[in-house]
Amino acid sequence: MNGSLYLFHTGLDGDRDARHITPEQLALLKEIRYFVVEDLRSSRRFLRASDPSFPIDDCIFFELNEHDRETAITQGIKHIKEGHNVGLLSEAGTPAVADPGESFVLNCHENGIRVIPFPGPNSIIMTLMSSGLNGQAFTFHGYLPVADGERLQVLRSLKSQVESTGYTQLFIETPYRSMAMFESILKVIDEHVLLCIGCNISSEHERILTGSRAFWTKNKPDLNKQLCVFAIGKPGA
Amino acid sequence: MNGSLYLFHTGLDGDRDARHITPEQLALLKEIRYFVVEDLRSSRRFLRASDPSFPIDDCIFFELNEHDRETAITQGIKHIKEGHNVGLLSEAGTPAVADPGESFVLNCHENGIRVIPFPGPNSIIMTLMSSGLNGQAFTFHGYLPVADGERLQVLRSLKSQVESTGYTQLFIETPYRSMAMFESILKVIDEHVLLCIGCNISSEHERILTGSRAFWTKNKPDLNKQLCVFAIGKPGA
Repeated sequence: MNGSLYLFHTGLDGDRDARHITPEQLALLKEIRYFVVEDLRSSRRFLRASDPSFPIDDCIFFELNEHDRETAITQGIKHIKEGHNVGLLSEAGTPAVADPGESFVLNCHENGIRVIPFPGPNSIIMTLMSSGLNGQAFTFHGYLPVADGERLQVLRSLKSQVESTGYTQLFIETPYRSMAMFESILKVIDEHVLLCIGCNISSEHERILTGSRAFWTKNKPDLNKQLCVFAIGKPGA
Repeated sequence: MNGSLYLFHTGLDGDRDARHITPEQLALLKEIRYFVVEDLRSSRRFLRASDPSFPIDDCIFFELNEHDRETAITQGIKHIKEGHNVGLLSEAGTPAVADPGESFVLNCHENGIRVIPFPGPNSIIMTLMSSGLNGQAFTFHGYLPVADGERLQVLRSLKSQVESTGYTQLFIETPYRSMAMFESILKVIDEHVLLCIGCNISSEHERILTGSRAFWTKNKPDLNKQLCVFAIGKPGA
């Protein structure tokens, strides 16, 4: 009989953070010996953080990097078909959402394997729920273009979408470009389409703020090297 | 000094489910005496589920229903400004995401009040991460139109969006209309744009399946009165 694929959230605040792992999740996690992972080192640290006595040396890891991806998927499926449960882990947060893993999950479905997700920290949802912006309909875009002109053009189009559909628009940026992104967004928003920045979600430096162009102009944040989720949208109901 | 607004996830599997509340969350939750809630009865049950000794009789609840919403927001802000922490609870899952609460959260931001989210079960993300569909960019639409013709038209437009942008399209339906929704989706998808159904997420009857039109035609599910999240999209990377 097939095993199952279990999807665990790792921490957002570095790979040593496993505060969100409940006793129920941990009991299941500790029975698993085969892991398909985005990154080997962070996965080992996460398992150790979840329980210092985790039998990591008895575990086998398959990495989803570009070079080994096909092997990771084939090996993951093989072990599930042999009756073992397999865990999927990304480097931070939710596997297969703004992180690798979809192809492995789809292979499981195609092989009739049961896929079982656990809840945990997701920076997109945690920013949205804390934003005060419309949470009834929204789009997540991942990364926007890097070039200044192109980014501004996309941001203008996202603002139009907010105005015409009401859907909140979420996106991310690499920490060293957070300030450049902020400056671009300031050129686009106004008193009706607000900006929420979810900064270092789930860490001790977490700060989530929402405001208009006037607010952000008066309260310029230092986002340099900060991990941010950006959301622009209308006030929710 | 102001208190803070804390956002807690309630369970998806009825209001007696608080399995996802970690000891850290519980310690904080148990210090809170003022709650702004979507529904009074389910909130009381949730708190009791989180800890049978929860001092519910010492708590004050403000309901976000149509009639009392403004009062709930005013009272919530007032108590935070008096230095109390306030908790926001929806009836199931994530507050202010496909559930009420945004306006209260935005009021907190406007009053310089800190907003602090906790992780927990969200049926949109748990369906997406388990779908095998593109998780790098996606849109959540809430409910689609109810009338057959209009619904089909919207579904056709969502399928076009999948084809042109690659964004996975997620939406929900009330349990007694799940089968009608499924039948409509079957008319729209094909071998390239797949359907994932996340059924009774986080309950003992949870089942998440992804497949093509051919798969779903051969494997018609009984979704009658089942709580479903639907996702249509391309296979993820």
